[in-house]
Amino acid sequence: MEHVPVWFMRQAGRSLPEYRALRGEGSILEAIARPELAAEVTLQPVRRYGVDAAILFSDIVVPVAAIGFGVDVVPGRGPVVDQPFRSAADLGRLRPLVPEQDTPYVLETIRLLVGELDRLDVPLIGFAGAPFTVASYLVEGGPSRTYARTKSLMRAEPQLWDRLLDVLADQALASLRSQVAAGASAVQLFDSWAGALSPVDYERRVLPASRKVLHGLADLGVPRIHFGVGTGELLHLMAQAGADVVGVDWRVPLDVARRRIGPGLALQGNLDPALCLAPWPVVADEARDVLTRGRGGGHVFNLGHGVLPDTDPAVLQQLVELVHNTAVDDPATGRRP
Amino acid sequence: MEHVPVWFMRQAGRSLPEYRALRGEGSILEAIARPELAAEVTLQPVRRYGVDAAILFSDIVVPVAAIGFGVDVVPGRGPVVDQPFRSAADLGRLRPLVPEQDTPYVLETIRLLVGELDRLDVPLIGFAGAPFTVASYLVEGGPSRTYARTKSLMRAEPQLWDRLLDVLADQALASLRSQVAAGASAVQLFDSWAGALSPVDYERRVLPASRKVLHGLADLGVPRIHFGVGTGELLHLMAQAGADVVGVDWRVPLDVARRRIGPGLALQGNLDPALCLAPWPVVADEARDVLTRGRGGGHVFNLGHGVLPDTDPAVLQQLVELVHNTAVDDPATGRRP
Repeated sequence: MEHVPVWFMRQAGRSLPEYRALRGEGSILEAIARPELAAEVTLQPVRRYGVDAAILFSDIVVPVAAIGFGVDVVPGRGPVVDQPFRSAADLGRLRPLVPEQDTPYVLETIRLLVGELDRLDVPLIGFAGAPFTVASYLVEGGPSRTYARTKSLMRAEPQLWDRLLDVLADQALASLRSQVAAGASAVQLFDSWAGALSPVDYERRVLPASRKVLHGLADLGVPRIHFGVGTGELLHLMAQAGADVVGVDWRVPLDVARRRIGPGLALQGNLDPALCLAPWPVVADEARDVLTRGRGGGHVFNLGHGVLPDTDPAVLQQLVELVHNTAVDDPATGRRP
Repeated sequence: MEHVPVWFMRQAGRSLPEYRALRGEGSILEAIARPELAAEVTLQPVRRYGVDAAILFSDIVVPVAAIGFGVDVVPGRGPVVDQPFRSAADLGRLRPLVPEQDTPYVLETIRLLVGELDRLDVPLIGFAGAPFTVASYLVEGGPSRTYARTKSLMRAEPQLWDRLLDVLADQALASLRSQVAAGASAVQLFDSWAGALSPVDYERRVLPASRKVLHGLADLGVPRIHFGVGTGELLHLMAQAGADVVGVDWRVPLDVARRRIGPGLALQGNLDPALCLAPWPVVADEARDVLTRGRGGGHVFNLGHGVLPDTDPAVLQQLVELVHNTAVDDPATGRRP
């Protein structure tokens, strides 16, 4: 039976006891730098859930940390920057990423993974942060609720901002190209916080950089997924960035999202991860609604954002079974395989 | 010269040195319970900025705290609940608000204010939290990023949820009616976190309660403002709740928002408060864009969310002058007063 493919953002993570047992409490960047550990963590949800894709265990600050910008990821807090990006002088602290030299462990992790994943016939999705979301950490110095410094820099010094995003676009592109060369068969560009922006700012000051990354992958022929949270007002713009699949959170029903992104692109999403903490009948009803609204074009079932740490893995297991047991029924063709 | 009216959410607050001097570090609930202090704090931005409205210095948890649900507002954190709402038994801990007995200080504050505001010819906007946003604090026990418990309760026990929201709607309605009786000449219903919900959940489980509040004020003949953050997908529904003015954050340009709310309603917003920390030319450009996009129907200039504590009061002062010096130019009539 043909079914919609399903995987979960942060399917490898704190919701899994086997992840917590393996990872301990250290920085995620240390774990990412250990290929055997990172490969094992990437495989855990594939083995447990039978999801239709693995996603490389990584973090959006891996490239900037690797070139020595002074970034760490503090457990329970997120990325923190020693000396935030504040002026043109800070451009000198950034340089192009040379993946083979700067992040050899990422490529080694992928090489360890692809043999095993090939046997399971499961594709590996490569991982990169989009220029805006990475820049927001560099400028703010850590997680933010307002992005006030980021928005101020973007507006007050647009040329400097554009240069910053261009450097970060080149890093993301180099990283993703190297991941594909090492064996990844799809990529996801995480612009998690783009939804904090107005459409005008997004179009002028962010879209060109994301487009550089996604268009720069076109010759590789791998599916490109483009994701952000709270992006209802940006979907028509994100659809122009060069992705094959646009990720959507639960705020926009998939049938509405499909009208906004237009024809020719697939959708990914969009079950609310908070609902995975509700009783199973609630989750099941919602998942069926997501599947129904996702019809009429390409759809990859996912959550609308990452798995919450308190999620019961049994619920994700049941979700995979529900999606796998729901036949694709495309009203565009009336076909029920 | 006729101009768009302007005020700022949280115009009375930590951005003002005279506020910090007066308030000190105690709980906001203690300050709200002192009518002379609360009245003075309410007046401070009116005197400093010459805004076109005062908003009652208050907090969305005032009614639930006043009836003894066990809520405090922790500085730097927000509302915290001793024993969160978890089951039908907790309904017994809620009761109707009797404003004259439970929150006499609110009414006394308003009575102190109206004389002074009448002299200044400035209206006072009454203040209440909307049922969903208040419920989210009661259920989560404090601020949340995911609203997982709230969404789970809403979906798993819809009848209990509806009863909770109905009690909170009655409290908000009683509070706002008493505020108008004491002299408030408009009201704002704050549903700050409604944007976390899908349109389906909002329509089924939240809109009826907000409608009860707003429709329940209809006979009083005062303008009713309805506000939330990240509500782009909900505007067409919020427009059905019975408000005269719908508040919008910066994510939705006002011309787009106007199409979504339809004819007959005014808009309030929507300058990004984060941009108020940018250099003045950036703020001014953005404010002019907001004014331009707000044309063609009623518009109250405001920020898209509350003033950030780091905001320079001089910027808000300049914003008021900019709005006051911009003539209303309505393309619908071609009239330039």
